[in-house]
Amino acid sequence: MNKPWNPHAAARPSPSDASDTDVRDAAIARFLKVRGQTEALARDLHPEDQTVQSMPDCSPTKWHLAHVSWFFETFLLVPHLPGYEVANADFAFLFNSYYEAAGPRHARFARGLITRPTVAEVADYRRHVTDAMTDLLAGADEETFARLAPLVEIGLNHEQQHQELILMDILNLFAANPLRPAYRPGRLAMTAEARPLAFIDYPGGIFEIGHAGEGFSYDNEGPRHEVLLRPFRLASRAVTNGEWLAFIADGGYRRPDLWLADGWARVKAGEYEAPLYWERHDGDWQAFTLNGLNPLDPAAPVVHVSYYEADAFARWAGKRLPTEAEWEVAARGLPVAGNFLDSGALRPLPAATDDLPAQMFGDVWEWTQSPYVAYPGYRPAPGALGEYNGKFMSSQMVLRGGCCATPEGHARATYRNFFYPHQRWAFSGLRLAEDA
Amino acid sequence: MNKPWNPHAAARPSPSDASDTDVRDAAIARFLKVRGQTEALARDLHPEDQTVQSMPDCSPTKWHLAHVSWFFETFLLVPHLPGYEVANADFAFLFNSYYEAAGPRHARFARGLITRPTVAEVADYRRHVTDAMTDLLAGADEETFARLAPLVEIGLNHEQQHQELILMDILNLFAANPLRPAYRPGRLAMTAEARPLAFIDYPGGIFEIGHAGEGFSYDNEGPRHEVLLRPFRLASRAVTNGEWLAFIADGGYRRPDLWLADGWARVKAGEYEAPLYWERHDGDWQAFTLNGLNPLDPAAPVVHVSYYEADAFARWAGKRLPTEAEWEVAARGLPVAGNFLDSGALRPLPAATDDLPAQMFGDVWEWTQSPYVAYPGYRPAPGALGEYNGKFMSSQMVLRGGCCATPEGHARATYRNFFYPHQRWAFSGLRLAEDA
Amino acid sequence: MNKPWNPHAAARPSPSDASDTDVRDAAIARFLKVRGQTEALARDLHPEDQTVQSMPDCSPTKWHLAHVSWFFETFLLVPHLPGYEVANADFAFLFNSYYEAAGPRHARFARGLITRPTVAEVADYRRHVTDAMTDLLAGADEETFARLAPLVEIGLNHEQQHQELILMDILNLFAANPLRPAYRPGRLAMTAEARPLAFIDYPGGIFEIGHAGEGFSYDNEGPRHEVLLRPFRLASRAVTNGEWLAFIADGGYRRPDLWLADGWARVKAGEYEAPLYWERHDGDWQAFTLNGLNPLDPAAPVVHVSYYEADAFARWAGKRLPTEAEWEVAARGLPVAGNFLDSGALRPLPAATDDLPAQMFGDVWEWTQSPYVAYPGYRPAPGALGEYNGKFMSSQMVLRGGCCATPEGHARATYRNFFYPHQRWAFSGLRLAEDA
Amino acid sequence: MNKPWNPHAAARPSPSDASDTDVRDAAIARFLKVRGQTEALARDLHPEDQTVQSMPDCSPTKWHLAHVSWFFETFLLVPHLPGYEVANADFAFLFNSYYEAAGPRHARFARGLITRPTVAEVADYRRHVTDAMTDLLAGADEETFARLAPLVEIGLNHEQQHQELILMDILNLFAANPLRPAYRPGRLAMTAEARPLAFIDYPGGIFEIGHAGEGFSYDNEGPRHEVLLRPFRLASRAVTNGEWLAFIADGGYRRPDLWLADGWARVKAGEYEAPLYWERHDGDWQAFTLNGLNPLDPAAPVVHVSYYEADAFARWAGKRLPTEAEWEVAARGLPVAGNFLDSGALRPLPAATDDLPAQMFGDVWEWTQSPYVAYPGYRPAPGALGEYNGKFMSSQMVLRGGCCATPEGHARATYRNFFYPHQRWAFSGLRLAEDA
Ligand SMILES: [Fe+3]
Ligand SMILES: [Fe+3]
Ligand SMILES: [Fe+3]
Ligand SMILES: [Fe+3]
Repeated sequence: MNKPWNPHAAARPSPSDASDTDVRDAAIARFLKVRGQTEALARDLHPEDQTVQSMPDCSPTKWHLAHVSWFFETFLLVPHLPGYEVANADFAFLFNSYYEAAGPRHARFARGLITRPTVAEVADYRRHVTDAMTDLLAGADEETFARLAPLVEIGLNHEQQHQELILMDILNLFAANPLRPAYRPGRLAMTAEARPLAFIDYPGGIFEIGHAGEGFSYDNEGPRHEVLLRPFRLASRAVTNGEWLAFIADGGYRRPDLWLADGWARVKAGEYEAPLYWERHDGDWQAFTLNGLNPLDPAAPVVHVSYYEADAFARWAGKRLPTEAEWEVAARGLPVAGNFLDSGALRPLPAATDDLPAQMFGDVWEWTQSPYVAYPGYRPAPGALGEYNGKFMSSQMVLRGGCCATPEGHARATYRNFFYPHQRWAFSGLRLAEDA
Repeated sequence: MNKPWNPHAAARPSPSDASDTDVRDAAIARFLKVRGQTEALARDLHPEDQTVQSMPDCSPTKWHLAHVSWFFETFLLVPHLPGYEVANADFAFLFNSYYEAAGPRHARFARGLITRPTVAEVADYRRHVTDAMTDLLAGADEETFARLAPLVEIGLNHEQQHQELILMDILNLFAANPLRPAYRPGRLAMTAEARPLAFIDYPGGIFEIGHAGEGFSYDNEGPRHEVLLRPFRLASRAVTNGEWLAFIADGGYRRPDLWLADGWARVKAGEYEAPLYWERHDGDWQAFTLNGLNPLDPAAPVVHVSYYEADAFARWAGKRLPTEAEWEVAARGLPVAGNFLDSGALRPLPAATDDLPAQMFGDVWEWTQSPYVAYPGYRPAPGALGEYNGKFMSSQMVLRGGCCATPEGHARATYRNFFYPHQRWAFSGLRLAEDA
Repeated sequence: MNKPWNPHAAARPSPSDASDTDVRDAAIARFLKVRGQTEALARDLHPEDQTVQSMPDCSPTKWHLAHVSWFFETFLLVPHLPGYEVANADFAFLFNSYYEAAGPRHARFARGLITRPTVAEVADYRRHVTDAMTDLLAGADEETFARLAPLVEIGLNHEQQHQELILMDILNLFAANPLRPAYRPGRLAMTAEARPLAFIDYPGGIFEIGHAGEGFSYDNEGPRHEVLLRPFRLASRAVTNGEWLAFIADGGYRRPDLWLADGWARVKAGEYEAPLYWERHDGDWQAFTLNGLNPLDPAAPVVHVSYYEADAFARWAGKRLPTEAEWEVAARGLPVAGNFLDSGALRPLPAATDDLPAQMFGDVWEWTQSPYVAYPGYRPAPGALGEYNGKFMSSQMVLRGGCCATPEGHARATYRNFFYPHQRWAFSGLRLAEDA
Repeated sequence: MNKPWNPHAAARPSPSDASDTDVRDAAIARFLKVRGQTEALARDLHPEDQTVQSMPDCSPTKWHLAHVSWFFETFLLVPHLPGYEVANADFAFLFNSYYEAAGPRHARFARGLITRPTVAEVADYRRHVTDAMTDLLAGADEETFARLAPLVEIGLNHEQQHQELILMDILNLFAANPLRPAYRPGRLAMTAEARPLAFIDYPGGIFEIGHAGEGFSYDNEGPRHEVLLRPFRLASRAVTNGEWLAFIADGGYRRPDLWLADGWARVKAGEYEAPLYWERHDGDWQAFTLNGLNPLDPAAPVVHVSYYEADAFARWAGKRLPTEAEWEVAARGLPVAGNFLDSGALRPLPAATDDLPAQMFGDVWEWTQSPYVAYPGYRPAPGALGEYNGKFMSSQMVLRGGCCATPEGHARATYRNFFYPHQRWAFSGLRLAEDA
């Protein structure tokens, strides 16, 4: 089904000098590393696991593996590699996610009906694209390379986002199986007490937020601009499972006064009774995780809660959620370190640092009270890539900080993640804030 | 069904002196005036018209008439008028809209199934409540009167909101009838050209917005707080039907690049092809209005568009929607005058003023790009009335300025109306803005 | 809205002789009587009650009143009364129920959105049609009269069917109102014990069923044809509320082995827990009826059960439902007498006769085990009236005998009523049978 | 996951003598043959193909493979093989289809979410069951063997039914894939003209239908009983694609007068425009089949039509569908031979016989006009197996004769297949009939 990519068919200019070669080699090495990391995530999954879509929000592993390759094919190879032939002319239809400008595409909710190409054929497709990309990077003249490098960087960041999605979606799929298969079986070590909760003071004033300068960022992180903040205080760590149990015990899911109306409607419809993937067995709460079904760790951050639940919890606690600007002002300057995908834990861990605020990066995405809207002066990129972020700027809320399924190096203080307020299958938790 | 209110059953202290009497008389007069205005809206409707609910977002006229009375009964009469007996114990169930703290209530979508109490019985109920309220106001001692006055003011503002809703809902109902009955039949006089569109410059800086000081406001209008604005420009008038026709002619409803993803999904589902109530007859667009089916007036403001459509139009025009802070900064200081309900037009009219910006108040509610969220430091009122505004602060967008169905005196510069971005049955239009 | 019918505009031939005049007078009298009976049913309903549609299966009273008039207008007046002008050209769209051949029509589920024409205007429409029909009948020459008489008879039988529907639909509407208004308030007198249940033997053999000869019948009652029956036994009376209580007490709604799979799926979905309109108050079952909410009469026939429930009950009782042929063989020869609409009870009554089998006519429609299909050799009538019955011959079940809401004279042994097996808003009950 | 079946753990009596051994060997051979045939159907499918459920009516191949094994485990091994241990205690939940008496089960619509057990683990499960069944059959004493043999026969017939379902469901799945993968790729040879259509006369009278005597049958085929038939005529072959094209060309899908109301509602909703799996490419109809996308063969029987379409076609043709009794009377005495699964064609073929009526067995299941109801005196088997057929006796229609996906030996003249009238994913076609 996939036509093999024939490297000799493409014109291949030689790079001009040694230092340029180093840059290219580094670029190729990074490219191959990210591609390899994606494939490693699927290594222990059976073809059956990689094919099924558990709900419309999710996609099959196999689809993710192919889609990120289609992205490189569409935005790098087809326009920039002379002589490149697409692996399969039908793949643009099957593996375009939502880019209207890139043509018609298969319905999102029906991705799980596509058993062909098989997992093995998708692996061929990945190889085809990886090889061609290597050729493109190795063979581009200097000027071209400089022009392509940012696009490659978008492609790699895009692929990293889908690494996280693969894990979110597999967890959702396995949770739908009464056998409760574990992505990576393991019994969680229970930790000691959670660190005491403190609130850290931040002054008010005019601050700049948003991305500027060196380094990769998405278009929605800019333009950098001034915001006016009032003095505020931010919790020293994320809200824990233990604290969430107290919320439940205090009737948190039974008191309408704590909830936004849209959230309460979902509670009454039976949608929320506890965080997603929590199960009660013989009176004890357990959580289904990528490590399988495990007892709750009371000291670990609560995860898989909706915005509505996070907001209700904060109201119950007499606090509020931070704005995204407050969060960013507090986070910048901190090292972007924490419990990311690379730690291998695959679950949020109790705060274990004396550097406060803890857990700003990694562990759980933190719901903010900020709707996801454009920064002042925002302009989406021209062309299909302009659809990456901008067209989703309605009815969603911003989350910050990255999580235990986010690849190292993908997070930063200005990064704006976003989900609808009812969604819970992301590794979403919360950190409290209050007015100073 | 309704027990008549017996004024002699209630203790009735005498007001102490003359000036107090004037205040009370004024309060009673205003109370009776608003009540009468509501009833006048229903005067030309048949009992049949007042009973039906055309969609879950709408309510029957009869329900509105009763619900606003229940509001006075629940928040004023029961707690504050000694000896008061409710007209009918079942009405609290039938006519509570969404106040969880006020007890269980009839399902919103099923309001149209309630044929009893009849229109005549609801009129009895209104009289019962009006009489008792008059007694309460006339008879309260000075201290009590001072305490009740703000609650009465909320009740009257609440009733005014429902006056607008009665008109919105009747228009929606009549639009569902192939006979296209007119609420108030009339042939629209076609106007001359729309005024030329200009953009007015506003400087940036730190501004205070939100309500403070004298006069009624809802809790969501405060606290007054500082915002940081960048220089901006605001259109001199609302977008017109003529401009919207140009948008349609230019493929506005066929170009995904103009639309937010959620809006485009609705376009593809066939939900939006033109503003709500527009109909094409033999190639010409007509609009169904409270005056019946009429040719479009190209100079009049476009109305009954969703946020998604307003946003797409602005993108098409190379502009953007204003933020609610920009709008408020531009509006304050202007006289709160315009084409309100009291003009009797019952439809938006072409701008007819030399004072710019025109049409800031009245004609159409103007979509802003601001999600409806709490102002910094916002706290809802305690008790059931705290549910009035706060619990709706998710997934909705702010509209400003009032419309041709808003009663005079109900609008102000700080007033925050809000609807979901897909909704169109309000008298919603737009005004363009841009960065300076 | 309705143009008055001007009798002088139509050519009016004189009837030829006296005996013909008698026939015509009788026809006109019968016509006026049926029309008047329909109107009497609506007499105590408010305009509000007559306008609302409680579910898609139901229609507003007002719609029924107009639709049966449209039937006469369409099938009698327009084609046969020279010079007749329709009352309102839009009514054909609004009041055609399902006759594809008669042109496009308003969506069934949206009948309740049509507040205009009002109840008063529909009364005008009825008068317009009644007057014109009287003219038509009085003025037709003999040959025409003979040709029209069967059509008039269809129109009157059609109107009688809608009399029953008016009552079914009003009961459904009032049941949706928490105030539980009674169509005709009244406290039921509780009766003594139900008559003992006996089974009457019928021999097998070849029998003719279906209508033939004199008297009105619908096309679906023919052709008369032979059927082969095995000996069977039929219960002496309908199943009672008391027997149904025993079924419930014995876990009838909790035992899947008693149910057809489609029925059990509805039980599990929470759709059936007891007959429709039964309510449990403080542990006691009550039934909402046209007389209001009343205690159950254990001796009265159970009513408002689905086919699935009737079938499950029969299985629980170790019996079965009769086939329609068995029922008809048992019923023919019996007087068509019983508790019909004209008794005024408006509810099924305990069997009170020594003539067995009792309650074959009136009280409740009896579910048979026979799917509603065409008799051998069945051909629908040509033209739009051919849509009356034939096109519904799939997925429905036959019921026999008439009920307490069926007008006297409308029932007969060959009459085939039909509903979907899940439906319950008809006055549907059951009688047991078994193999001999 | 599957515990291997250890044959030595079970008591294993020796069969007593030689002739008994032959019977057992034959039984075991037949058992192994059917099991092998099932597995052969899945041989060319990838694990991905075997896992996905394309719609709620369908099941994954993997599920079918496991479910038929669960059937043997539940009804043969657990009750009758001493010491037998189930392969996996969770499988009863996952692989019970609809037997309420056999305990709770996984929701039908969610069968496609179960990626574990994998295809390989299901193969282990099948081996486990096959081995244990072989032991049971080989080791049972004579009396036990005689008692078990009918249950084994049910199990094998059940497995054969699922062989057909595997093919129906895979076709449906592959049809949802824009790549249109072929189950068994192949270009259809176009045939000559269809044989001329003739009508064969059958006399009326009293006939016995239903199964009796030797040989396997399902409970719903009995009791054998007398029916009264009028003289009728039956078409000499099935309706062809060519005839269906004429129906389409004559507006068959646009004329409401041809349709039952329930069917027409689906036409208007866009559900039916041509038989399922027909696609129009550049004006020409093609059909997606197990051999891939192929031009229509005008001489081959039309397949994948609903009852509503079959009924409309018959009305258009001025004929009718046969009753199931007519069909059975015509079919008995004919050899049960035709184009079954074993022919390898995997599609209906043009009639190619001079023996009339042709195609009574094989090619396509033929819709009859008979609702699927119990024969007089029918009693379902006791216990869970009583749920096999009886509880589905509502709202479905009977089809007769078997199809190109039915295994040889599974069809017979008394066999009653049944589907809902709207369903089309079975290999369903039709044969015309008329009154003589
Ligand atoms: Fe993507
Ligand atoms: Fe209200
Ligand atoms: Fe009718
Ligand atoms: Fe099965």
